Amino acid sequence: MRLSNDDLRSMPNRERAALVNSLSGFKSANLIGTADAAGNCNLAIMSSVVHLGSHPPLLALVVRPGGEERHTLHNLLNSGCYSINHVACDMVESAHQTAARYDRAISEFEATGLTPQWWDDFAAPLVAEAPIKLAMGLREHQKLAINDTHLVIGEVLQAEIPAACRNHDGSLDLTVAGTVALTGLDSYHRAARLKRMAYAKPDQPPRALDG
Amino acid sequence: MRLSNDDLRSMPNRERAALVNSLSGFKSANLIGTADAAGNCNLAIMSSVVHLGSHPPLLALVVRPGGEERHTLHNLLNSGCYSINHVACDMVESAHQTAARYDRAISEFEATGLTPQWWDDFAAPLVAEAPIKLAMGLREHQKLAINDTHLVIGEVLQAEIPAACRNHDGSLDLTVAGTVALTGLDSYHRAARLKRMAYAKPDQPPRALDG
Repeated sequence: MRLSNDDLRSMPNRERAALVNSLSGFKSANLIGTADAAGNCNLAIMSSVVHLGSHPPLLALVVRPGGEERHTLHNLLNSGCYSINHVACDMVESAHQTAARYDRAISEFEATGLTPQWWDDFAAPLVAEAPIKLAMGLREHQKLAINDTHLVIGEVLQAEIPAACRNHDGSLDLTVAGTVALTGLDSYHRAARLKRMAYAKPDQPPRALDG
Repeated sequence: MRLSNDDLRSMPNRERAALVNSLSGFKSANLIGTADAAGNCNLAIMSSVVHLGSHPPLLALVVRPGGEERHTLHNLLNSGCYSINHVACDMVESAHQTAARYDRAISEFEATGLTPQWWDDFAAPLVAEAPIKLAMGLREHQKLAINDTHLVIGEVLQAEIPAACRNHDGSLDLTVAGTVALTGLDSYHRAARLKRMAYAKPDQPPRALDG
């Protein structure tokens, strides 16, 4: 079926949100941890973390201005730091629950049963249960005029990774880490590797790598 | 294991690229189709398409300035349009091969065996084999000073979706579409749904939905 821009614009809000959120493909599922100056914690699930560059190691994050995500934005702009924590299969229920509109005074860690972990000289909580944890330093922030979302760019200051998921070439096997993939607003997936492909060259046919 | 920013910065380039590209979690796998004024086509696989908003339906894309992706950037800035096409399981080899550094005069469609499809009043080719195809209109573009990547924001003008993958609430079941998920630079995954979660509310425990 073919849907036009008018079809999308005239849909009921919830249906449009469910559909358009599905169009980009599989999404990352991360918990963003922040704290205010008094040490009050906030934790929010987001599906918009995207790779920006390796050298320096930069990740971008799109933050929506309304709802739960505004606490995250407020905290990270004030503290200059935040954590990115992979959601693993056995964390899906508590991770999804962080999206509820809790009062600002309530820590989503306490509300959902996840455990804050503090690292030396880093003012944001990480998620103890997450298999992969990143301590991020805020590098750039802008409000995108087109729809008032915020683009947050951060640098990886420290990364905790299970040794068992690290491949020989440095890449990570996220199926070993147990990281899930999101689609739409609420669908969580486990992934199974189909294949790894060799570096593509114009004069050679595509070739799958072992392992 | 814990890696510091210094550890990351001092790694060999390929190892760092493989690792940092794995840190954000699962990524979308899309083919970006463009054409120049003479109708010469370009097709490039990208893992950086991210949802920006539903109303209007906006997707963002991070384009790297070097290599193959510069042809895509050049074309879409000139034509004002591009296509986003999901990579399905049976397209992985040809989709990955579009990353090879072909000369500008060579169409990656011809080189990889994928089929260009043209839609009325739309100046970019779509990929006939892709289960989900989006015709995008360029809305905003900026070069990010922090690392010279380009942020491209587009609006969904038309979307083609298999009716069989559309759920009752409007969301798409991408496991039915056969869409793959990427990790790192070269690992392709098939996904299996773990669960769908009900809309999270502060006064209710997390609840999985059927189906």
